[in-house]
Amino acid sequence: MEDKVLVTTLEEAKRFMLDCFQTVGVSGKHANIVAENLLTADYRGHFSHGMNRLNWYINDIITKSVDPNMVPSIEKQTIATALVNGNNTLGAVVGEYCMGLAIEKAKGVGIGMVTAFNSNHYGIAGIYSLQAMKARCIGISLTNASPVLVPTRAKEQALGTNPISFGVPGMGDESMLLDMATTTVAMGKLELHLRQNKPLPEGWSMNNAGDSETDPLTAIKSHKLFPLGGTELTGGYKGYGLSLMVEILCGILSGSSYGPNIPMWYPEGRNKKADLSHIFIAIDPTVFAPGYDVRLNDLMSHIRNIEPRNPDKPVLVPGDPEKNHMNYVDLQGGLCYIQNQHETNKILAEKLSVIGMRSKVLDKIAVKE
Amino acid sequence: MEDKVLVTTLEEAKRFMLDCFQTVGVSGKHANIVAENLLTADYRGHFSHGMNRLNWYINDIITKSVDPNMVPSIEKQTIATALVNGNNTLGAVVGEYCMGLAIEKAKGVGIGMVTAFNSNHYGIAGIYSLQAMKARCIGISLTNASPVLVPTRAKEQALGTNPISFGVPGMGDESMLLDMATTTVAMGKLELHLRQNKPLPEGWSMNNAGDSETDPLTAIKSHKLFPLGGTELTGGYKGYGLSLMVEILCGILSGSSYGPNIPMWYPEGRNKKADLSHIFIAIDPTVFAPGYDVRLNDLMSHIRNIEPRNPDKPVLVPGDPEKNHMNYVDLQGGLCYIQNQHETNKILAEKLSVIGMRSKVLDKIAVKE
Repeated sequence: MEDKVLVTTLEEAKRFMLDCFQTVGVSGKHANIVAENLLTADYRGHFSHGMNRLNWYINDIITKSVDPNMVPSIEKQTIATALVNGNNTLGAVVGEYCMGLAIEKAKGVGIGMVTAFNSNHYGIAGIYSLQAMKARCIGISLTNASPVLVPTRAKEQALGTNPISFGVPGMGDESMLLDMATTTVAMGKLELHLRQNKPLPEGWSMNNAGDSETDPLTAIKSHKLFPLGGTELTGGYKGYGLSLMVEILCGILSGSSYGPNIPMWYPEGRNKKADLSHIFIAIDPTVFAPGYDVRLNDLMSHIRNIEPRNPDKPVLVPGDPEKNHMNYVDLQGGLCYIQNQHETNKILAEKLSVIGMRSKVLDKIAVKE
Repeated sequence: MEDKVLVTTLEEAKRFMLDCFQTVGVSGKHANIVAENLLTADYRGHFSHGMNRLNWYINDIITKSVDPNMVPSIEKQTIATALVNGNNTLGAVVGEYCMGLAIEKAKGVGIGMVTAFNSNHYGIAGIYSLQAMKARCIGISLTNASPVLVPTRAKEQALGTNPISFGVPGMGDESMLLDMATTTVAMGKLELHLRQNKPLPEGWSMNNAGDSETDPLTAIKSHKLFPLGGTELTGGYKGYGLSLMVEILCGILSGSSYGPNIPMWYPEGRNKKADLSHIFIAIDPTVFAPGYDVRLNDLMSHIRNIEPRNPDKPVLVPGDPEKNHMNYVDLQGGLCYIQNQHETNKILAEKLSVIGMRSKVLDKIAVKE
């Protein structure tokens, strides 16, 4: 069982993705945006939303479910808001464009809110909050997604994992970045338990009868997740309410598909348009009270210094696990993808006739965290 | 044990509160705003935030912790944002003023965001979303509060129940109104379990060691609540992240007290300023895609019609429990306060020399829901 661990530099991982995208006809500019998006997810430790999705994106392009070289266009705007047609281009392209527009509006009048329809999967929501944070703004992004969340008291799913991302830059290197699904966990965690042959904790997923299900295979097949909070007794109606809030701000406001009408996404492609929608809000904190960044650093530092229940597990603020992961990647000299990812890449490289992703055997695994 | 149930008309409940506020020197205009605020909470079934708080408000005024006749003032604004000084007036007055300002901005440029500092407890957050909804806007309001939430992995509380309210009007009578604490439950639910001598479910509250505590008295004494999601395993870091998001948008942006610096609020008054802060966002949905209300009604109706796990418990959307409660109050001909509330009122009426609240014995209890 002594599998060797392979490490891939960030540059090489990006090179491989760029080659794949450009080979299927994506322009250099758009290929760069989407490759950078997926790489950022992996670098931050969200492997489910990184190169793991490359195959899905490529298939969407090959099957013409996505029009990768289209550019988003403004349908309607005010000085503080905009409605953007994604024109079915890559979600990452739509997202970068829309958050850029929101930042521009925030720099003018303090806040910008942009909603996009006719879009596609846009990666981790946190990417767009980070974009706003680089411009010294608070960044918020939400997206709808295919239905997996079962509303409290219901037997059937009606809403997506509908994530909420909220980020704010502080003084120096300080920042806070929340990026969370409104379900208890994302589907990827169920798959991990299945691979490890471990039962699921109560309150993650449910079976077709609508009861909490601890067998990962049954749970994955039913494709039904509890909202954040779990059952009604432990506040699941709040997670459900938050997911519904996201859907209203995305699908309902923008006129895209919504809730149960959103098609599922499979590795082999959908063969139909996703018509997803997202929102992007940028807020310029300087339009409010001066010194927000001093106060932010103070609060973050207070929280990190609270005595932990377990001395080995320090108290973190949202975004700290990702910062720790990036340090870990830097120490290792690259990303350690699972063996399965390397195999998928090999097949993809042969199929597209691109140079396979080069990795080397890792000498020594760095200590995590 | 056959206690008679008393019913109080909405008019009489309001008359009593108005008399109390005016007797301690609150202007007719401000007394009306705060009495209407508390009455709305009771009418909607949130008794913890209604007349239950009257005594606290009156004591804050008598002890001069609050300056009830001051008016809020704009410190700084853009066409889409404002920073408001609450001037330590009643929170309900600050809230009504700020959401009014946010609506005005939303009607002009599509969105308005107003943050207030130097304010006081403002009742249920949902009141301000309702105010926006009456103006056909989406309404969002958040507030910070005294620390009770223990961040994931920590032993000590650092944040408040920091509620999130989000409301949107649909076609006709349709609407969705989420109004939720970012803790699993509010303190009031612990007190209810204590009165009923029932153990608490796991994941609501914790003891001083930081472990889940099912004894309600120990839990109330420790004054420590789990974030929405409970433990780290079941996503508690998400509820903690949401609470932190609220604190950043409130205290950190507006320059008020924040997190662990917020004083506790007791029935006998604080004898010091609360310096709370809130935010108010109004969004005019017509600046986005036409027909949002048709889509909203369709989604609400789809969700309500999903097959429920238990046929006696239909699937609801946020705001339905409150609508059901208002129907129930209308059927009964008024509000049924618990005996303890009547006793507190009697003492208060004598203390302030106002006419006690008149109620009558209820003939027949209407069927709830």
